[in-house]
Amino acid sequence: MAKLGATGQGGVNRPALTHADIEVHVRLAKWARDRHFGIEIDSYGNQFMRRAGTIPDALAIVSGSHSDTQPTGGRFDGISGILSAVEALEVIDDAGIATRHPLEIVIWNNEEGVRFNPTNMGSAVYTGASAVDVMLAATDREGNTMGGAVRNLRDAIPWAKVRNLKTPLAAFVELHIEQGPVLEIENLDIGIVTAIQGTRKFEVEIIGDEAHAGTTPERFRRDAFVDAVKIASALRDLFYDPLDILRFTIGRFEVFPGSLAVVPGRVLFAIDLRHPDNAVLKQLGRQVESVCNKAATRCDILVIETRRAHPTSFEGPVPEAIETAAKQRGYSFKHMPSGAGHDARYLNSFCHSGMLFIPCEGGISHNERENTTPEALAKGAQVIADTLLILDERL
Amino acid sequence: MAKLGATGQGGVNRPALTHADIEVHVRLAKWARDRHFGIEIDSYGNQFMRRAGTIPDALAIVSGSHSDTQPTGGRFDGISGILSAVEALEVIDDAGIATRHPLEIVIWNNEEGVRFNPTNMGSAVYTGASAVDVMLAATDREGNTMGGAVRNLRDAIPWAKVRNLKTPLAAFVELHIEQGPVLEIENLDIGIVTAIQGTRKFEVEIIGDEAHAGTTPERFRRDAFVDAVKIASALRDLFYDPLDILRFTIGRFEVFPGSLAVVPGRVLFAIDLRHPDNAVLKQLGRQVESVCNKAATRCDILVIETRRAHPTSFEGPVPEAIETAAKQRGYSFKHMPSGAGHDARYLNSFCHSGMLFIPCEGGISHNERENTTPEALAKGAQVIADTLLILDERL
Repeated sequence: MAKLGATGQGGVNRPALTHADIEVHVRLAKWARDRHFGIEIDSYGNQFMRRAGTIPDALAIVSGSHSDTQPTGGRFDGISGILSAVEALEVIDDAGIATRHPLEIVIWNNEEGVRFNPTNMGSAVYTGASAVDVMLAATDREGNTMGGAVRNLRDAIPWAKVRNLKTPLAAFVELHIEQGPVLEIENLDIGIVTAIQGTRKFEVEIIGDEAHAGTTPERFRRDAFVDAVKIASALRDLFYDPLDILRFTIGRFEVFPGSLAVVPGRVLFAIDLRHPDNAVLKQLGRQVESVCNKAATRCDILVIETRRAHPTSFEGPVPEAIETAAKQRGYSFKHMPSGAGHDARYLNSFCHSGMLFIPCEGGISHNERENTTPEALAKGAQVIADTLLILDERL
Repeated sequence: MAKLGATGQGGVNRPALTHADIEVHVRLAKWARDRHFGIEIDSYGNQFMRRAGTIPDALAIVSGSHSDTQPTGGRFDGISGILSAVEALEVIDDAGIATRHPLEIVIWNNEEGVRFNPTNMGSAVYTGASAVDVMLAATDREGNTMGGAVRNLRDAIPWAKVRNLKTPLAAFVELHIEQGPVLEIENLDIGIVTAIQGTRKFEVEIIGDEAHAGTTPERFRRDAFVDAVKIASALRDLFYDPLDILRFTIGRFEVFPGSLAVVPGRVLFAIDLRHPDNAVLKQLGRQVESVCNKAATRCDILVIETRRAHPTSFEGPVPEAIETAAKQRGYSFKHMPSGAGHDARYLNSFCHSGMLFIPCEGGISHNERENTTPEALAKGAQVIADTLLILDERL
């Protein structure tokens, strides 16, 4: 799959429903057809490949992820979740195991939000969180609509049946590369995802006065950089978390006019704050403005919140089944929150849901250097196969 | 004079020896000719207008400044120093005062370093600090040489005689707008410049690791911004000066990759350090690298010194004459260092030298909004006139 959209530097450039991405869908649909699995595509371009169960009306137990990538993405983000589900269904099929529920592989459309904005469109539309007509009207930079892209997908797989949006599911489990360094550093096989953390983003503007660096005494300065440093230090104190669960990042920090010999008159920076517990986000977010104002000594401060997304917790049968699966295989594991967003966020309010992580080399992701090991992928796929069977028994 | 090169927003755009700047030289030469003053231009384009003294071989006592400006410069930086010298010589001439020394008005060529680099070329070449042939070969963006520009000046004032470079002078006194807020805030008429401060500039590079803001726990981060904030705080402690003479500015501070959701992997910032005492600069500058390294907790630090200029102190007959002049007129004054560089820096190692400042509205300079009052200008010109006469007596 990494050959479809390969960048030549070891990475993958495969935005949603481009030629390369449609080719991924077609190959998977052909593999599924060879297995006599049913193939369905919904009106938003989410593709489902279904192995029938023994109970006629049982809801499907689903596993999968997304096939699109960042422009300089890696070989594992998304696609490893799809291929582990393919692997799981193939071994179950090869073993001749009859499941009560249908088992499905899913490809969620446009998770990365690169070609069409926003992210997680496919899962949001399928579960009813976003309106299908609005999202089908989204355009890429060349003015192509998502609606047109979905027609191209359908034309490429004419044997696919129509799946209705919001068709109920019994459960969803998603394997994903961690995109962080924890499992690798702690030498663990599996991360059982407890939650996708919530996020609050703020913009802080510090307004002072530009002045001549050579001629203006300190006592007359209103140096925006000096106050910005004080604010950044105060925020770091505010956000100190001995449990190291909270994520606090200042990644964008701009100084104006940015000239060697001019006292800065303005600084603009962004706060990225994430935590799996909404109460923590609420309590800390509430203090941002006052902490900024208190830390500033001479400048005017403007704080605005630019984004807020609530956390989602994975509880119940899916994480329990993942844990059972990991234990019975003797794989080492830990419970951990997800720093990044995933399609499972939307599924979690729609059906029993859960996620598992496999280790990510150096924690590097959204990068052509993204890497993991065949062993890690194999263990992850094994846990997916086991989890599907455990859920089939328990649900 | 502010009409020559007027920007239309109240400022002046008059780079060295452009058409507008040559017109300034021509007008001043004509005024001087009307007074029967001698007019001389040296091979580097510095222009001298001379009122003869009574002692045949006495060296000239000189006052003046530069006529060029920044691209969005003000109406006073430089030219007020020339016009106050013109005013002084005219009143002395009108009063029929015979001086022992010749008195001269000077226009130093290319002080701002905007059209031709570096700054202070005219005074550096005249005093022998820079080689004339090298500086005449300097080119502007269109490829015109300084040599050609000087020929244009000579062609515009064909009656000017040739002044030899390094012709000795008895003394030089320069009036300049303060370019800082001190005199205005302290409600003083005259600043007697004690020194042009020295400067040391450093670049600090902080190298960490880029990481995903959502997925990377704090304990695994090498966040270049976090270390940069610690370093900036530590430098501020190092450079704290209760006397508020030291100038410490971080004006350029860049964070890479500068993306909201990416832990910064690199920060590059510049330190601008100035002080009139070279021993202080030496002692503090020596500590920059170790303070940066000590403050950093996880990243690699690279410190390089990018520029060093020694301070120059004004002592002896010129500042003493300025003080006598201010006192006898009842003008309020203070002794103060200059934050910016000036032509008097080079003259100070060539002849008795000194400078006086007049107030600058809001400390704003190198800006079209630069302003001062007619009263401030008049008092400054009065002190220049008196200083020339006092020096004529004392030297």
